[in-house]
Amino acid sequence: MRGTLYVVGTGPGGPQQMTPEALDAVSKATEFFGYGPYLDRLSLRPDQTRIASDNREELDRAQAALARSASGVDVCVVSGGDPGVFAMAAAVCEAIDAGPPEWRDLDLVVTPGVTAMLAVAARIGAPLGHDFCAISLSDNLKPWEVITRRLRLVAEAGLVIALYNPISKARPWQLGQAFDILRTVLPASTPVIFGRAAGRPDERMTVMPLAEADPAVADMATCVVIGSALTRIIARPGRPDLVYTPRFISGESQ
Amino acid sequence: MRGTLYVVGTGPGGPQQMTPEALDAVSKATEFFGYGPYLDRLSLRPDQTRIASDNREELDRAQAALARSASGVDVCVVSGGDPGVFAMAAAVCEAIDAGPPEWRDLDLVVTPGVTAMLAVAARIGAPLGHDFCAISLSDNLKPWEVITRRLRLVAEAGLVIALYNPISKARPWQLGQAFDILRTVLPASTPVIFGRAAGRPDERMTVMPLAEADPAVADMATCVVIGSALTRIIARPGRPDLVYTPRFISGESQ
Repeated sequence: MRGTLYVVGTGPGGPQQMTPEALDAVSKATEFFGYGPYLDRLSLRPDQTRIASDNREELDRAQAALARSASGVDVCVVSGGDPGVFAMAAAVCEAIDAGPPEWRDLDLVVTPGVTAMLAVAARIGAPLGHDFCAISLSDNLKPWEVITRRLRLVAEAGLVIALYNPISKARPWQLGQAFDILRTVLPASTPVIFGRAAGRPDERMTVMPLAEADPAVADMATCVVIGSALTRIIARPGRPDLVYTPRFISGESQ
Repeated sequence: MRGTLYVVGTGPGGPQQMTPEALDAVSKATEFFGYGPYLDRLSLRPDQTRIASDNREELDRAQAALARSASGVDVCVVSGGDPGVFAMAAAVCEAIDAGPPEWRDLDLVVTPGVTAMLAVAARIGAPLGHDFCAISLSDNLKPWEVITRRLRLVAEAGLVIALYNPISKARPWQLGQAFDILRTVLPASTPVIFGRAAGRPDERMTVMPLAEADPAVADMATCVVIGSALTRIIARPGRPDLVYTPRFISGESQ
C-alpha cells in the first residue's frame, strides 16, 4: 500500500493567506517534512509528526518524504508561499526523476499558494500589473553569469523583475551587483520595492528609486521588485505611496 | 464618510483555492464590481449587490467602484486568480492616478490570490521551478511588436514563459505567431503546457512539444506555459506525465 504525497504552500505567512485546499491536505497527512519556520506555521494534531530540516537540504528532504510515502504513509512536504516557485515541488520532481520506479506510481498532489511577489504587490498597489518575471538571485544552484545575463535581457525586454533569494550571509554582494547591472539599462527613477515579510506582523515595505537602491535594506525574508520604465508612483498625503505598472503600453512609449 | 475599497482575487476557480483573507474582504463589502463569471464564484448575501460588467471595461469599472467607495460604500472589486496579475488592481491604480484627489484618500485593501500559472503548474508538476516570466499576449493594450520582442528576449534568457490571454475570437492568430517566434530560439522538444481551467470541474491539461504545439488547443480559459531548454518530462505508467524545471543549472548547460 502506497501513501499520498502532498506538496503544499503555506502562503506568505499569515494563516489568512493559506488556501482551504492546502489546509485540507495538511489535515490528511501524518508526517510533515519542511524547513522548521514553515512547519511552525501549521497547527498540527498530536498524531501528526514534524520532520524539520535545514533550508538548504531540499533534495534530501524530498527523497526522505518520497521514501516514507512509498512505504504507505500519507506525507506532506511544506513550502512557504507557493511550492512551485523556487521551492519543494521541483525538488520532489527531481527526486522522482532520478529515483526508483515505484516513486512514479505515488499519488502526488501539489496545492498552489500565494507566492511572495504577489503578496508584496498587493500591499503596495499593482507593480506586477503588466508583464513581469521572477528570478532567483541565488548562485548556489546556477552560475552567476547566467543570472547577470538574464537580468540584462529581462530589463531590456521591459519586464518588471521580482528577485527571490536576494541576499543571505553567504551571498552578501549579489544584490548590489544586480542593481548595478540594472542601472545600466533602466532609468535612475525606476521604483524598487523591498517587500519584507508581506502579510506577517513584522512586515516592512520600502520603496526607493533604483539610483539609490540600497542592498542593505534586504534580508532573507525580502522579495525585491524592480519596476519597468513605465512603473509609476502615486503619492497619497498621509498614506503610503502606491506603486503600479499600467496595463497598457502606447505605441510611443516602448 | 468614506468607504473601503477591497480588490480581491477569487483564485483560479474553485472556492478551495480562495484565501480566508479574500473571503473576509467579501464579507465586509456591500457592492461588488466585476466581470460576471468572476462574481458568480462568490456566495453573496441578500444585502450585497452585484454590478457586473464586460470583461473589457476594466477602467470604467474601476472608476465606478472608486466613486461609490468615495461616497461612503464599502466596495469590492473582483478579479479571477490574483487581482495584481493582468487584472483589476492595476486598473484601480490607473483610475486613482488620473482621478480626483479624494480617491487618494480612500482605504484601499488589495488581497492577493493564486494566479492561473501557479494553479496550472501545481497540476502538472513544477514547470515554474526555476526563473520564469508572465506575459500577456493581448495586443489590445500594447503593440504586437512589443510582445514579439519580449518573447524573443525572455526565450533567449532561458526563462520559462507563462502566456496569459493567449487567444480570443478577436485575436485568433497571435498565439500561433508566438509559437513560431519561440521555435526560432527554443529546442523543438521544449514542453508546452496548455492549462485550461485549472482547479475547476472542466479542467483540461495538455502537453505537447513546441514543434507540434497547436494554438487551437487554447481558449480564453487557458494559461499556456512554455518550458525552457532545461524543462523535463517524467513519464509515469498509468498516470499523467509530470513536467518540471530543475532548480539548478550546471556551468555546462547554460
